[in-house]
Amino acid sequence: MKEMTNKVMQFCDERGWRQFHNEKDLALSISLEASELLENFQWRSSEDAVAESRQNIKEEMADVLIYLLQLANKMEVDLEEEVYKKIEKNGVKYPVIR
Amino acid sequence: MKEMTNKVMQFCDERGWRQFHNEKDLALSISLEASELLENFQWRSSEDAVAESRQNIKEEMADVLIYLLQLANKMEVDLEEEVYKKIEKNGVKYPVIR
Amino acid sequence: MKEMTNKVMQFCDERGWRQFHNEKDLALSISLEASELLENFQWRSSEDAVAESRQNIKEEMADVLIYLLQLANKMEVDLEEEVYKKIEKNGVKYPVIR
Amino acid sequence: MKEMTNKVMQFCDERGWRQFHNEKDLALSISLEASELLENFQWRSSEDAVAESRQNIKEEMADVLIYLLQLANKMEVDLEEEVYKKIEKNGVKYPVIR
Repeated sequence: MKEMTNKVMQFCDERGWRQFHNEKDLALSISLEASELLENFQWRSSEDAVAESRQNIKEEMADVLIYLLQLANKMEVDLEEEVYKKIEKNGVKYPVIR
Repeated sequence: MKEMTNKVMQFCDERGWRQFHNEKDLALSISLEASELLENFQWRSSEDAVAESRQNIKEEMADVLIYLLQLANKMEVDLEEEVYKKIEKNGVKYPVIR
Repeated sequence: MKEMTNKVMQFCDERGWRQFHNEKDLALSISLEASELLENFQWRSSEDAVAESRQNIKEEMADVLIYLLQLANKMEVDLEEEVYKKIEKNGVKYPVIR
Repeated sequence: MKEMTNKVMQFCDERGWRQFHNEKDLALSISLEASELLENFQWRSSEDAVAESRQNIKEEMADVLIYLLQLANKMEVDLEEEVYKKIEKNGVKYPVIR
């Protein structure tokens, strides 16, 4: 993830975009990109959407992650660590029934 | 990312959840989690939101990524590769002005 | 609202669209249109967004309402009645402090 | 719609909330409420969602409309007029095929 984050931040810096990056608009952007991802499934079944729009779905997934990496970088959050912590927390909330 | 994905999928498998994981509901879930992330910024400035809700913001970011990893796994998409491709594509769309 | 709903449903019927109108995709569409509305405010203050994009904001607001009317029609919900009920419920939750 | 708007604005005024109502956060709130509406359909078919969560779906629809009325009031937009204009515009975009 670090290498990916560096690449994303370098891209923003080359264009002088980092000055606009406040946390509220980054969170807003994640939500907008997630909607563009979801738009591929509007009025369609999963099967049809994946069959007809696989390329666009992949690109919108990348857009969500790109903004997520920017927000994590801005807030100095280690996303991987947060995912592992959240899985552990969810494990307590939803215990395995054997 | 692979290790993280394995951990997430193992968590789902232990609970028998993978059977429900169609792409449309996963995309819908990404959008819902992105909204829960954004909710932390409702009626507040970036500064106040981060100061007051840092812990919740981090957890919601993790939730977005957890569902994103599940959708990528389901569709057999290499998210890292997609991010690099998207950055390259964006570089053509938004060239650096020197 | 009834006249407006009739107009919207007539528009859909003339195009044979009503057959596709399940509640899940209508709710999904409301969310997508709400995101398109919100997109006008991305990276911008309220003032700048309203000054620069007033026309588009108005159209996206109409789109949200058009889908909301369709979902209400499909579910046989009286939206006005629901708004009054919700205001009453909110009044109990957030009492006026004098 | 005017009576409904008056009722909503009166509710806000009694609680001193109108001072917080900038257009960006109102648009953000519409999107958040639309997500809460959509959440009723997560991992479920339309039929199951409507059967199991009809009451909550109705309340979330009301919440979307309540914020939409507030944004329209703030921007001095006549929502009904906008809906009729949008239907006309859509009629040009999607002509009826006979």
